[in-house]
Amino acid sequence: MLRTGFQMAVILGHHGALPGLTHLLPRFNPASAFGSSTETLVSRFCWEMTESKNYALPNASWGPDMLSLYHEFLEKTKTEGWVRLPSFRSNRNHIQGFKLPLESSANSDKSDSRLFTRCIEREGQGYEYVIFFQPSEKKSICLFQPGPYLEGAPGFAHGGSLAALIDETFSKTAYLSGEGLLTVNFNIKFKNLIPLGSLAVLNVNVEKIEDHKIYLSCVTQSRDQQTVYAKASGTFLQMQLEEDSSQH
Amino acid sequence: MLRTGFQMAVILGHHGALPGLTHLLPRFNPASAFGSSTETLVSRFCWEMTESKNYALPNASWGPDMLSLYHEFLEKTKTEGWVRLPSFRSNRNHIQGFKLPLESSANSDKSDSRLFTRCIEREGQGYEYVIFFQPSEKKSICLFQPGPYLEGAPGFAHGGSLAALIDETFSKTAYLSGEGLLTVNFNIKFKNLIPLGSLAVLNVNVEKIEDHKIYLSCVTQSRDQQTVYAKASGTFLQMQLEEDSSQH
Repeated sequence: MLRTGFQMAVILGHHGALPGLTHLLPRFNPASAFGSSTETLVSRFCWEMTESKNYALPNASWGPDMLSLYHEFLEKTKTEGWVRLPSFRSNRNHIQGFKLPLESSANSDKSDSRLFTRCIEREGQGYEYVIFFQPSEKKSICLFQPGPYLEGAPGFAHGGSLAALIDETFSKTAYLSGEGLLTVNFNIKFKNLIPLGSLAVLNVNVEKIEDHKIYLSCVTQSRDQQTVYAKASGTFLQMQLEEDSSQH
Repeated sequence: MLRTGFQMAVILGHHGALPGLTHLLPRFNPASAFGSSTETLVSRFCWEMTESKNYALPNASWGPDMLSLYHEFLEKTKTEGWVRLPSFRSNRNHIQGFKLPLESSANSDKSDSRLFTRCIEREGQGYEYVIFFQPSEKKSICLFQPGPYLEGAPGFAHGGSLAALIDETFSKTAYLSGEGLLTVNFNIKFKNLIPLGSLAVLNVNVEKIEDHKIYLSCVTQSRDQQTVYAKASGTFLQMQLEEDSSQH
């Protein structure tokens, strides 16, 4: 989940769930037109970072199912407009050049933090995933192979690990589809357990963008679509990031 | 989330959300009386495991807020019937002596797995938490101090990390309160961001147990209760574990 304003969120909290958006901090101006096209957002997001590891690339721990579907979607990036999203160690990398409130707070030590879904460094042990985004259809696919450190019931992925990854995929999809940055709510219904080491496919769609909110859905299933693991929905709040003029 | 039957869940899936419980596998007999008292469940759960690390004990990374509230609740274990729950590396440890379907599956390598919410070994880097359970009131408190590897927005805990820990606290509370083992659904509304390194308090209540389902709620807030971070609810399915006769 990419959320950018503690102060803003505090204000949200004071007014209950989803108060009038006029209460937002001035630096997040939801009333302004959302001028950034999906194309612009994607090109900003998918910049080359030679100094940072991109975790969305295959490694030796990826199983045959994960690898073959990865290559299938990689092919679609050439022919069908899909985009493979890079995945860096921190959301700081994804939003470089933009202002974040409280960026300099004592709790924001840049040197020693990780995006939660990239918290386990060793390949194959934790989260293995890659997200492909389809800009014109505003949808995403996330290929997810849970490692043994994501366990809930013995031998299976913890429901919380799936919930967190759906939230993360929602977050990136909401941002690229319409500058959605703040998770407002999230619901999930579990249907089946995901065996550790197997492939689960998250199919995320933007259902609608309305009244500065982005509504998303996700069906998580096996590659052959015969087993549904979970169905989820989420709502994100639109808010435009401002460029950080100090970096120019 | 402690869930014990992939086959059972498959059957659930085939019939949609929460079908007639008669479709469950014979080994999980939801129609049987839930004979285990809360006292029995707690005493089974809180057994001494000298060979395994208990992660629910203070370490050098715990801040003053976390430590002082921990000691406050530790005092309540002596005077008000609260129970400090142990927290081991795997749910296997918590349910030793009971059967789990597919325990011997290829995906269930006992030697190299971790409960998701204990996936990060180094103290202070990931999840620091301890759960206290109140058997007579069927409620729990979880003290949560998110480390820098649980980041979402820079400087703040990922919403997914909170969702996963609420699910985990629900899971333990549902099991001890009434043998609830399978997460059916989970909803969360986010109100404020949790700064990394700070203390968040999860207040979990069993709202009702009805028709073999356990309904739980959670309010996550700051220690002074002035800031609500999130409100959540979840439903778990009751199912009695059978003793593993092979171990006797």
